[in-house]
Amino acid sequence: MPGVPAVSFATDPSRYRHLRLETDGEIARIVLAVDEAGGLRPGYELKLNSYDLGVDIELADAVQRLRFEHPEVRAVVITGGLDKVFCAGANIRMLAQSEHWWKVNFCKFTNETRGAIEDATEHSGQTYLAAVNGTAAGGGYELALACDEIILVDDGSTAVSMPEVPLLAVLPGTGGLTRLVDKRGVRKDLADVVATRSEGVRGKTAQAWRLVDEVAPRSRFAEIVRERAQAAAARSRRLPGGPGIELAPLDRQVSETSISYPNVTADLDREAGLVTITVHGPRDEPPANAAGMHALGASFWPLAMGRELDDLILWLRINEVELGTWAIKTSGDAAAVLACERLIEATAGQDWLASEILHFLKRTFKRLDMTSRSLIALIEPGSCFAGPLLELALACDRQYMLEGVLEDGGDPAAGPAQLVLSAGNFGAYPTANGLSRLASRCYGEPGQLAKLEQETGRPIEAAEALELGLVTFAPDDLDWDDEVRIALEERASLSPDALTGMEANLRFPGPETMETKIFARLTAWQNWIFTRPNAAGPDGALRRYGTGQRAVFDKKRA
Amino acid sequence: MPGVPAVSFATDPSRYRHLRLETDGEIARIVLAVDEAGGLRPGYELKLNSYDLGVDIELADAVQRLRFEHPEVRAVVITGGLDKVFCAGANIRMLAQSEHWWKVNFCKFTNETRGAIEDATEHSGQTYLAAVNGTAAGGGYELALACDEIILVDDGSTAVSMPEVPLLAVLPGTGGLTRLVDKRGVRKDLADVVATRSEGVRGKTAQAWRLVDEVAPRSRFAEIVRERAQAAAARSRRLPGGPGIELAPLDRQVSETSISYPNVTADLDREAGLVTITVHGPRDEPPANAAGMHALGASFWPLAMGRELDDLILWLRINEVELGTWAIKTSGDAAAVLACERLIEATAGQDWLASEILHFLKRTFKRLDMTSRSLIALIEPGSCFAGPLLELALACDRQYMLEGVLEDGGDPAAGPAQLVLSAGNFGAYPTANGLSRLASRCYGEPGQLAKLEQETGRPIEAAEALELGLVTFAPDDLDWDDEVRIALEERASLSPDALTGMEANLRFPGPETMETKIFARLTAWQNWIFTRPNAAGPDGALRRYGTGQRAVFDKKRA
Repeated sequence: MPGVPAVSFATDPSRYRHLRLETDGEIARIVLAVDEAGGLRPGYELKLNSYDLGVDIELADAVQRLRFEHPEVRAVVITGGLDKVFCAGANIRMLAQSEHWWKVNFCKFTNETRGAIEDATEHSGQTYLAAVNGTAAGGGYELALACDEIILVDDGSTAVSMPEVPLLAVLPGTGGLTRLVDKRGVRKDLADVVATRSEGVRGKTAQAWRLVDEVAPRSRFAEIVRERAQAAAARSRRLPGGPGIELAPLDRQVSETSISYPNVTADLDREAGLVTITVHGPRDEPPANAAGMHALGASFWPLAMGRELDDLILWLRINEVELGTWAIKTSGDAAAVLACERLIEATAGQDWLASEILHFLKRTFKRLDMTSRSLIALIEPGSCFAGPLLELALACDRQYMLEGVLEDGGDPAAGPAQLVLSAGNFGAYPTANGLSRLASRCYGEPGQLAKLEQETGRPIEAAEALELGLVTFAPDDLDWDDEVRIALEERASLSPDALTGMEANLRFPGPETMETKIFARLTAWQNWIFTRPNAAGPDGALRRYGTGQRAVFDKKRA
Repeated sequence: MPGVPAVSFATDPSRYRHLRLETDGEIARIVLAVDEAGGLRPGYELKLNSYDLGVDIELADAVQRLRFEHPEVRAVVITGGLDKVFCAGANIRMLAQSEHWWKVNFCKFTNETRGAIEDATEHSGQTYLAAVNGTAAGGGYELALACDEIILVDDGSTAVSMPEVPLLAVLPGTGGLTRLVDKRGVRKDLADVVATRSEGVRGKTAQAWRLVDEVAPRSRFAEIVRERAQAAAARSRRLPGGPGIELAPLDRQVSETSISYPNVTADLDREAGLVTITVHGPRDEPPANAAGMHALGASFWPLAMGRELDDLILWLRINEVELGTWAIKTSGDAAAVLACERLIEATAGQDWLASEILHFLKRTFKRLDMTSRSLIALIEPGSCFAGPLLELALACDRQYMLEGVLEDGGDPAAGPAQLVLSAGNFGAYPTANGLSRLASRCYGEPGQLAKLEQETGRPIEAAEALELGLVTFAPDDLDWDDEVRIALEERASLSPDALTGMEANLRFPGPETMETKIFARLTAWQNWIFTRPNAAGPDGALRRYGTGQRAVFDKKRA
């Protein structure tokens, strides 16, 4: 918002204040040593390896860089770098002083980062292990839960704990409750005990209850962690393909009314509450093979565009919270977009970089799905909604496609707008519910999905796209401006909260996964609790924590 | 709460003010003709067949009675009894003036009633059809969505609509958003349009978008509805078994400190925020066969106990919102409980009454799962947690079982407490996620479930129950009083909101269904929105609706 210092999600290891990224052959270590004085906003100290958004931005950066810059790494150990502290979770004073929208945004990003850790373990052959060498409380234990293995030091005092409910009157909402029962298979009544016992659970009991995988005395801890990391690295199916590529700094230009990158631009209309995002297709021919892709590295269009779009999404989410509608456009050559996708898809089974780009695009599109803004695709002449960029349209709540050409104001050389389906649209970029966006769209009519598969590869104009169910409306030149304007104005007139709740329910039909349960079910309850006086009010537990005064609770059960 | 008139959920057709229950052979009609002046609380008029909790209590009663009192009915038509009105949904002024806990409780009950309609269609051979003969707005359309078929009058003006988001800044939260995409398979972008277009969708468009199954001109409407109902009745697999049984009025005795029925008692400890519920086992031998069960009718123990427990749950939920913990006990003879269950299970495949009792117990236990109170099972000597009553313990958040006998204060004749697993515990009473409570409990260790199946039928004492994972803790006589007291006091000390959110996440591990999506995901978002000023604040849309003043929205997206 104007006048408030903007938060940037861009960083790199040379700028980290809170963690060290160390690599040693196949094994990397992310060592949390949070700088108490390094809070992103004033008003709190990051004691005991507690974290705020700034810490998590570094963690997300480290997880991302390991995938692209360190293809030799096959296991990653997360551990604490302070004496007898793994991580104390989200900083409580930060939560207590934060606005509701900040808390919700912060939790969403931390959830996405935990998801990225699991994505690396599952898809990238970089298995995460938590070496819990000291207190792991709340979000600290939830960070461990995102890892594939948890090794706990058994010293008679170190515990894993979820003190959120008993001490703070909020939930272990960074996936904790869901991962306990759904990922680790902790019995539900024991999970109830864990989540209400502020002092946590230690040693053999933690192992017997499935809260950790292994315990080790302090004297043997480092050795056992090393053995486990080596075993994980040995199991890794990380793909070969030469040295890492550098994720060079993004070129982001910010003005009062725009944010622009080489491949992505955003125009901000504060009065209308609207951002118009345009993703530009490739300027150049794609390289001929994987070697050419490696040579281009971070400047290969799909990766460059993906990084810029990801950065923009995060920027807008936290810095432009009053711009509630995002209109999404593309411009460029569909054939060039599809050529890039073909190279990636052809090599993703054998080459780590191609595979990483594919999974990164998947995560970026998921980030869009999870964004609490109304998303409206505007498909016009000159656009290139094809393959991966078609996913942008499919992620939207509605799709408007211009039928024919614009008589005034359009590019006279451009023919009618076209969509192109690619094989990738049928599975390469699954949403959080495990389905492709097309399958989610056709959830009620599976036959329609099979029909669409036969239309792969050829341009589809508006009338046919409407007929095939690929777009919501297809106004012609006469109606386009009015219909789009009315739709955007209408959206801007509605309650932001009601829209967020509606979109969270409509975007994921059909099956649920741990991921959708975390982002929708658990998050929704946490958001509710974050608005309740028992937690966030002046006498609530978040505010009174550490003051010596007990929180005052309204005892009514809703 | 003391001093406030209590709400009773008990009614019968002779007392209905808002609807007519008509039966004609295989087909029944529930005709909504809401009495404007018949609101349950003062301050609003129930115009245009809008409903409040009082209307829904009658609807729930009608749905229940049809299953037990009208076994000849195989199709049920819900229709409007006012001119050109089907149902306008939940009354807005009622929502605007209601406390948060009242709104949440009201929505939960209406959701359960919609679920009971679907349960009757799926399991009872009583298929529901919505004859939408006039405006179906908001909760009115959501009521239609709970039916198996929707027939809409096509008169150029009658629409189905979801005006909650655009007019009231809340969600179609009575299952509407979920049923649109998950049950009816409405395409998600079209669902977005429906849920933001206050005037709704009419005629052929409504059919093309899958919002309704059929449209009919007013001149042929009654005839087509009749044909559809007859076809549904002809498809019915309703079981035979003689005439209906009467659901006689419940004998509920309420005092300041207790609520008691012949088979269920509840002791209220307001200071401790605690209700101790005791379910008593059968006093008599069960009848020898189905004929004997029909002769007993509503006094057959499983049905009598189930009705009392169901009534108690509803009573406590709305009238005792500050009593946040329910301790659940049983007393009686496990063999007698199991004998009743055996008779039901042996005949449920052929006899409608046995089948209805089984499904009713299932729904009652689900009601417990969905209750936002901490549930603690106390398993002591003299108890009868066996078969269906074991489900009560398994529905709890924790299970405490006394090891050995109580030296002081216990029944000297009673031996140690025992649990008995029956075949029914492995599938007859699924929870909302489609799993048995035992399968939910063993979600992380499926092998444990197979092991438990081998223990069916024999008494299991505390040490073994602990070993088998059937109970959380098994203190002996020396520790029992202190451990239970500490657990109950601890629970009472925690934030009611945080506990509700925690329990909603832990009670349903594993798979999700439309039902869990409605009760957890959709409801959680609705609860959040119900606390937000954009909806419920003094300048919010719920309060300003109908005043001529526009709502004022905080535009920040959280």
